Order: sequence, then C-alpha cells, then structure tokens
Amino acid sequence: MDRRSFLKTSAMGGAAAAATTTLAAPAYAQGKRTLTMVTTWGRGLAGVFDAAQYTADAITAMSDGQLTVDVKAAGELVGAFESFDAVAAGQADMYHGVDYYFLGQHPALSFFSQVPFGMNFQEFSNWFYHDGGRELADDLYSIFGLKAFPAGNTGPQSGGWFSKEINAPEDFQGLRFRMPGQGGQVLGKLGASVQNLPGSEVYQALASGAIDGTEWIGPWADEKAGFQEITKIYYTAGFHEPGPNLNVTVNLEVYEGLSPAHQAIISNASQATNIWSMAQFMSNNSAALQRLQSGGVKILEFPESVWDAFGAAALEVVQAPMDDELYKACYDSYYESMKKSAEWGSRSEGAFAAQRNRVMG
Amino acid sequence: MDRRSFLKTSAMGGAAAAATTTLAAPAYAQGKRTLTMVTTWGRGLAGVFDAAQYTADAITAMSDGQLTVDVKAAGELVGAFESFDAVAAGQADMYHGVDYYFLGQHPALSFFSQVPFGMNFQEFSNWFYHDGGRELADDLYSIFGLKAFPAGNTGPQSGGWFSKEINAPEDFQGLRFRMPGQGGQVLGKLGASVQNLPGSEVYQALASGAIDGTEWIGPWADEKAGFQEITKIYYTAGFHEPGPNLNVTVNLEVYEGLSPAHQAIISNASQATNIWSMAQFMSNNSAALQRLQSGGVKILEFPESVWDAFGAAALEVVQAPMDDELYKACYDSYYESMKKSAEWGSRSEGAFAAQRNRVMG
Repeated sequence: MDRRSFLKTSAMGGAAAAATTTLAAPAYAQGKRTLTMVTTWGRGLAGVFDAAQYTADAITAMSDGQLTVDVKAAGELVGAFESFDAVAAGQADMYHGVDYYFLGQHPALSFFSQVPFGMNFQEFSNWFYHDGGRELADDLYSIFGLKAFPAGNTGPQSGGWFSKEINAPEDFQGLRFRMPGQGGQVLGKLGASVQNLPGSEVYQALASGAIDGTEWIGPWADEKAGFQEITKIYYTAGFHEPGPNLNVTVNLEVYEGLSPAHQAIISNASQATNIWSMAQFMSNNSAALQRLQSGGVKILEFPESVWDAFGAAALEVVQAPMDDELYKACYDSYYESMKKSAEWGSRSEGAFAAQRNRVMG
Repeated sequence: MDRRSFLKTSAMGGAAAAATTTLAAPAYAQGKRTLTMVTTWGRGLAGVFDAAQYTADAITAMSDGQLTVDVKAAGELVGAFESFDAVAAGQADMYHGVDYYFLGQHPALSFFSQVPFGMNFQEFSNWFYHDGGRELADDLYSIFGLKAFPAGNTGPQSGGWFSKEINAPEDFQGLRFRMPGQGGQVLGKLGASVQNLPGSEVYQALASGAIDGTEWIGPWADEKAGFQEITKIYYTAGFHEPGPNLNVTVNLEVYEGLSPAHQAIISNASQATNIWSMAQFMSNNSAALQRLQSGGVKILEFPESVWDAFGAAALEVVQAPMDDELYKACYDSYYESMKKSAEWGSRSEGAFAAQRNRVMG
C-alpha cells in the first residue's frame, strides 16, 4: 500500500497533527537566524550532549553564522521529556535526543531510536540511508510536523549497574530499575518496577536509593556519570540498546522555511555528527572499562537463562503495537533490512574478525 | 617525540614536497568557484564513484553553488594512479580515491586506506576521529601539500574471483591476480604474480585472460562490475580489506585559501558521505550475493591453512617499512587503537550479536 495513506489512517497521528499549526512561518532577520535546539540531555552529559553541540557547531560553521544554533540542556527551556512536544508546537526549532522517550506519542518511534534485540549502528545506517528507513521516518515524523535526522549513536549499551548480582530472570522481580523505551517494558514483564528517568536525574535517584539499579550508556559515559561511586556491580552487553540512534528533529515548518542550502547544511551536519558520535563512544569505552575494573567494579555478563527471558519478553513487547498500521510497516521494513544486514555482516565482518582473532591474536 | 619533526625527518616526504609549489593561490570569481575533483574510479563505478559524486553534490548544495565541484572519472583529466600527484601539483583541486594506490609516494598511506588484517569501518572511525588518526594524517598528507578527509568506505571486501578453487597456500603460486596495496604484497609473498590495476580496467583484464583472478569490493559492486560473467568461483571474507577508507584529498593551498565556512563544508560533506557510503555497500551486499548464487556462482570461504599463510605474510609486509619514522608512528598509534576497539567491540557488539543469534534466531 501507499505509505502516504498512513498519514490519513494513523489514528494517533491524526490527533497530534493539529498541534503544529500554532507556529509562525520562520523569518530571517538581516540574513541571520538563531535556531533554538532543546535537548533531552543535562548540560555537558558525556557523549550525548557532545553530539548535540557538535551538530550545532557544524551548522553554525558551515552557514558562516547565518544560522546560529543555541543549544539548551534539559530543563533550561523545557524538560527532557517535553522536547518532542515543544518542537512540534514551535516552542523550540529543533531538539537533539533519543526518541524512545516519546513512545507515548507514537510507538513506532522505537524504530528510530531503539528496539530491544534490534539493529546495531551499522545495520541502522543501512536501513535508514538506503533501505527504506528514511522514507518511513518522514511519514512518521511529519504526522507531528517534524523532520528527523540521525545525529549520534552510542554504540552497544551496557547491561547496567545493579545493587545485587543477576543470576536468574527471577532476580528482576520487584527490582526498581531505570530503563526507558521498549527495553523498560521488557524488564516490566520480568517483574521489575521500571523507572523512566532522563539522564540528568539518574545519578541522584541511584544515590538516594530511589532505584536499585540503572542502565545508562557504556563504560565511558557511565564512568563520567559516576555510577561507580554508588555500586560496584556492572553488566556489560545488554539486550536493550545494541545501537540507539539519536536524532536532530526539526520543526517541519521551520525546516521548510529555510533555504535549500541551509536545509542541506542541517542534513549533512547531522549525518557528519552521526559517525563522529558513534566513534567517540566506541573509542573511549575500552580504557574506561579498565579504569572501572581497576577501581574495584565487578564486570559481569548476564547468564543465558536471563538472555532467554529477555528474548521471550522482547518478542511480546515489540509485537504488541502491531495493530497500528504505520508501526507494522516500520516493523516489516526494519526486520527485513536487519535480516539482510545481519546475514552479510556475519559472513563478512564476522568471518573476518574470527580469522583476525585466530590468526593474529 | 613531536610529530611535527616528521615533516623534517621523513626522507620520502622531503623530495615530494617540492612538487607542490607550482600552484597559484586560489581565487573566487564573483564569489563563486569551481573545484575540480579527479577520482581513481571509472565513471559510474558502483559505490565508489557514487561516494565521490555524493560528496561533490553535498558541497555544492551546502555552499548554495558558491563552490561547484566538477567530478572527473579516471582518465577524463588524469589517470586513476595519477590522482595523488595531480592534486599535489595543483593540476586538480581534490581527488576522491583509495590511497593504497599511492604507496610509492609514502608507505604510511596504507593506514589511511587499508592495512591487511587491519581495522574495520567502525575501528577506523574510532581511530581517525578520536584516537590520533586525524593528526597523523595531517602530518602525512601535509608533506605532499595535501589534506585528507575520510569520505567513503566499502565495508569488508570479499576475497575475490578466481579461475580455480584455492585449497592451500600453494595455489597462489604463479597466479596472476589483481590486488592493490599491501594486500597485493602479501599475495606476492605467497608466489602470486600481482597486478595493480584501477577498477575501470579490471573487467577487461579478467575477460581477456590477462589475469587469473581479481578482488574488487563485495557482492553488490562486483555484480555491477559483471565478474560473474567471466568466472563462477567467488570467495567471500578476505584478509586484505576489512574496511578500506576512501578519502577526499584536497590540495592544501586550495583548502587554506577557502573561507572557514567552505572548509567546514568540505569537512562535513566528506564525513556525511563516509557513513552514507559504508551503508550503501553493506545494505546491498546480501541481496546481491543471493542473486550471484542463483546465477550459478559458487560461494566459498578460504580454508584455515590459507588464512594462516595470509597472516604470516601480512605481518612481514606491514612491518617492512618500520624504518620510516612516520610509518612507525602511524603503526604504533593504529594498532594501539585497534586493540582497544577490538576488545570493546568483542565484549559489546560481539557478545550482543552472539546472543541475538542464539535467542532470536
């Protein structure tokens, strides 16, 4: 079926679309314009705020200051969880953030942030840039008067910080754990009491004992956040975020009011940030993990029984919103692409890595 | 030691640096400037020429036509293997290409294109953008009056097309095989008669029987090149190019004559191309491999004895130029970074992929 028909048939979208009409057409004052970028990040939060700032700086530099991007941390103009609505309503021009914070607006936003057991960075890039992802994103975000550009990726996230070791799925029963998005819904099915806190609030919640554990990003960003000061039990590979995509999402009316050159600058600045950001996380994680270990943190991996429980619950969670037509279209496209990417990835990069390890040590 | 001292001490660089003084300072005509980009690719060559054109188009679009990039295929202005010298001498403003074609100018160019058994795309990105690679590249390329920006990556390349099956290292004895760069030097150590042909000349050489086999890129680009019309024996994972980096390399005097905004546009256009290009190859390979297989191509993997021989020869080849101080500095930085990246990659993406396969199938 024609994707465009989703714009008419998606019930969730229909209601929200009305919210975008309050925005005045954008204007340039003496050839210059300041764009306000709100974010879902606390100011200076390692990696994620960096990606927002990097995109902003690239836009300003490439436009020779004709576009100046003013980056606001969470809480400076609106709260982290208000970013999506604020940009849809024209209160800010754009936001940088991770869209599983906004599944209440539309469940298909999970495909453009992270599905548990889903795509890694490379697979997501394949899908978004070349295999139908971008077109589906345009359909989804335009419902809300928005346009999204991938502009950052943390690489595979760690399982997280716990007050006790996890030896069986039952250990999640009653555990008060911070995890947003569909990953959090999975832990809910395992009996956890799941908290959805923005990054800037996690340290305090863990330190005060309001939560028993949290995932955040990976060794480098986690170390910067200081969780090792509170607990010493850390799980590496997690099921929930193998390659979460961060977007710069622009108010569509603002975007369409920009010149084609400035539109191209926003698009390319985001895309350039995307690879820079992934590499920032991935280049820092190994050394950070060693420092954490030297500092007494116990580095663990989930046992297979726990992975099995994650998997069974994830299947339920990811398939739950399939009555929504646009969600199903994203689901079908996403998994068809992921299957192809994973097959070739295993045969090429996987086979090579195995031989490199075996032959070269 | 201070990296800058390489500029004085690198003997190979000293001779070549003199070649760059012929270039006139660049000028804008009525605020507009056309930049000539030569390439190491035949016109329209799948993936690689696409990446050159994508970068060019992004530069033109973002600069609102103030910079127009005129892309020349190999042979249209200079031959593929003349691109490096042509841009160093100011005959063209920039080139898009893969720099293992130019190891005669400096062996350290292998680190900024591909070292056999070296980094994949993600590892190279970590090194280049965050772990010392960019600074070493600036040192190396500035010797020749050049500045390089990663602007494309094919992902892991296939072992290639053969006129016969490869069952033991001895099967390379006397084999006339096309493979450029240090990978080709490795096959030379195994007794092959190695040919270094640019992409646009490979099909004809294979079809005429001038060579017994060739590697090119991967299933998608190889299918487009049509090698399956000539032989039906195809090896997937190869040792030689797990993630070759393609650069846009600009004449340094031209670059420094541009405005800061236009410099930022070239840098970001290249970086945006980098992820787009990698994803183009990786998203197309799986389906192409299936088509090749359906068309009667036999899909094989090298046996472990051959991988072992590749490994032993690669160690010799990669360590041979260590007397050159800049080569050694690149080597040390490259492998230190690769070790960290590989460790974390195995613990995060590797561990996740294993569980995703096991649990979700």
